[in-house]
Amino acid sequence: MKKHNFSAGPAILPQSVLAEASEAVKDFQGVGLSILEMSHRSAEFTAVMEEAQQLVKQLYHLPDNYKVLFLTGGASSQFYMVPMNLLPQSGSASYVNTGTWSTKAIKEVSNFGTVKEIASSKDKGFSYYPKGYEIPEDSAYLHLTSNNTICGTQIKHYPDTNVPIVCDMSSDIFSKSIDYKRFGVIYAGAQKNLGPAGTTLVIVNEDLLGKTDRSIPTMLDYRTHVAKNSMFNTPPAYPVYVCLLTLRWIVAQGGLEAMQANNEAKAGLLYNEIDSNPLFKGVAASEDRSLMNVTFVLENKDLESAFLAACTEANISGVKGHRSVGGFRASIYNAMPKSSVQVLVDLMKEFTRTHG
Amino acid sequence: MKKHNFSAGPAILPQSVLAEASEAVKDFQGVGLSILEMSHRSAEFTAVMEEAQQLVKQLYHLPDNYKVLFLTGGASSQFYMVPMNLLPQSGSASYVNTGTWSTKAIKEVSNFGTVKEIASSKDKGFSYYPKGYEIPEDSAYLHLTSNNTICGTQIKHYPDTNVPIVCDMSSDIFSKSIDYKRFGVIYAGAQKNLGPAGTTLVIVNEDLLGKTDRSIPTMLDYRTHVAKNSMFNTPPAYPVYVCLLTLRWIVAQGGLEAMQANNEAKAGLLYNEIDSNPLFKGVAASEDRSLMNVTFVLENKDLESAFLAACTEANISGVKGHRSVGGFRASIYNAMPKSSVQVLVDLMKEFTRTHG
Repeated sequence: MKKHNFSAGPAILPQSVLAEASEAVKDFQGVGLSILEMSHRSAEFTAVMEEAQQLVKQLYHLPDNYKVLFLTGGASSQFYMVPMNLLPQSGSASYVNTGTWSTKAIKEVSNFGTVKEIASSKDKGFSYYPKGYEIPEDSAYLHLTSNNTICGTQIKHYPDTNVPIVCDMSSDIFSKSIDYKRFGVIYAGAQKNLGPAGTTLVIVNEDLLGKTDRSIPTMLDYRTHVAKNSMFNTPPAYPVYVCLLTLRWIVAQGGLEAMQANNEAKAGLLYNEIDSNPLFKGVAASEDRSLMNVTFVLENKDLESAFLAACTEANISGVKGHRSVGGFRASIYNAMPKSSVQVLVDLMKEFTRTHG
Repeated sequence: MKKHNFSAGPAILPQSVLAEASEAVKDFQGVGLSILEMSHRSAEFTAVMEEAQQLVKQLYHLPDNYKVLFLTGGASSQFYMVPMNLLPQSGSASYVNTGTWSTKAIKEVSNFGTVKEIASSKDKGFSYYPKGYEIPEDSAYLHLTSNNTICGTQIKHYPDTNVPIVCDMSSDIFSKSIDYKRFGVIYAGAQKNLGPAGTTLVIVNEDLLGKTDRSIPTMLDYRTHVAKNSMFNTPPAYPVYVCLLTLRWIVAQGGLEAMQANNEAKAGLLYNEIDSNPLFKGVAASEDRSLMNVTFVLENKDLESAFLAACTEANISGVKGHRSVGGFRASIYNAMPKSSVQVLVDLMKEFTRTHG
């Protein structure tokens, strides 16, 4: 029986995507080969890569100087590739620290230039999103993490600045519309809203490249992948294919406006229960709550194991909070049906009736 | 109808692997989740990673100080990660240049130390494997490419040296037994003998690490992945899973001895036809011929398109030679059944009967 999958990532994918992805492993579109054993230089796979790139451009309305790459190594590899490609040794980059992932990103910069942590929410356990900070005009870029999976915060308004924003959107990519013009680089590990683990989407404004005077290993230079349309070497073909299926699904659902409306409805349902149910309490500051990762705790910690057992009983999976913060986390990415959120909400009500 | 898949990579995988890999995309072992949407921290996926590592150790009889990593970025990323991790800035590394891939590997070294190209077969278009070269005793390592997919050469005897060998085995990993003690690092993009594109196997003798005094980005430091058992960040879960299925298949077939015997039989069948058929001629020097990639040309180039058409007609796919050398290439990796090689041989005979 299919579980209600609230995992933070790798995370739920649309059922129709999984069905088609399974079929392609047996035989890709009737060509007599599995997608796993097809040359990446074949006409069939070239079409997969090009359509995936085209759909990314379409969803974010990207002009030609914004290049779409499907790389590997996770967002964790972008933590060093961004400064390696954008930050001259004599330059400085500004970072806003909003949690574990920002902290890891900041750690990788000093090999390549100066890092300025211009704002942080560490003082309150990263439970809010900093606002109203000053951005030094001479920053090579401003680095933000749009959504923080562990504490469950999300940026609501990107700062108004001439400094190009580099944004780790791993956990809310394609969950809503954005204004691409604010961004110099957007990157996202695929395994939340976009596809399975194994590929990393990188959108880069190529006007920012080639300004560091640094000798960069071929595979780490964005220009290598831009020049070869993300096919310099063998790409992670199957993860890219599943991303394509997910992108098609997003378009078929009505695009980013539909994603956003649906995400707001699902998150509203769950936050409403957390706020009205006396047993539960939200973790993140109300105004910064994530629409993707809903974090909450039981006021009485002694009930935690009973609640987890009730979730398992109800076929709900993945709601245990991250090991670094505890409590609970319901990740409700694009592909999560509202009906599954309702199952969780109903369970919370029932749990309160029996344990309240 | 299933094609006879002679693609150089991504390449043929065992049919039983593809069937099980397809099923896991629908539901992984009855847990109610697809393998594509399961947390990499789940007990189920942790078991996948650990068994895959264990089988690699078992097949090559590796002791505890040889660590097995499933990374990303392809062999192309190892071209710079190897010197970054093993070569002190004041040190030198020796490289044998046997083709396109060695040439690319050599290009990445100079950022990190001195590179010595101690032997090369470029003088004859990389159609043979250099032998009898001197290896400087002070080399941090000796880099070899064991099998060259483009020209179809393969090393038959590794040199006797105290210098640790770093070997790109992308295209003949697990095709035969090796003596691990000669090697400091073995790496291989998965997409030939091991699995689909999207993961790179790296076997590293950890005694060689930590000697460069270089500041290495976290994700590029082998020690990061050794310390976290290849789970520092989200690994390419599905590609690793398909590698596990392929490793199990190798073991079930009788291990590396069985692979080698089968590979010798298949290659013998095809080379015998090339040598005895007046229309065809082998590309690589006889004594250096690859058991994995059989390269050949038609003596009369005017017949090329007719031969390719006959292959297509016979449901044979992927035999066109690499764009840089032309002619034909039949890649007959572990998973290629002898019966498919026989189909190609029969076609060559028939082609000669009708066009000879």
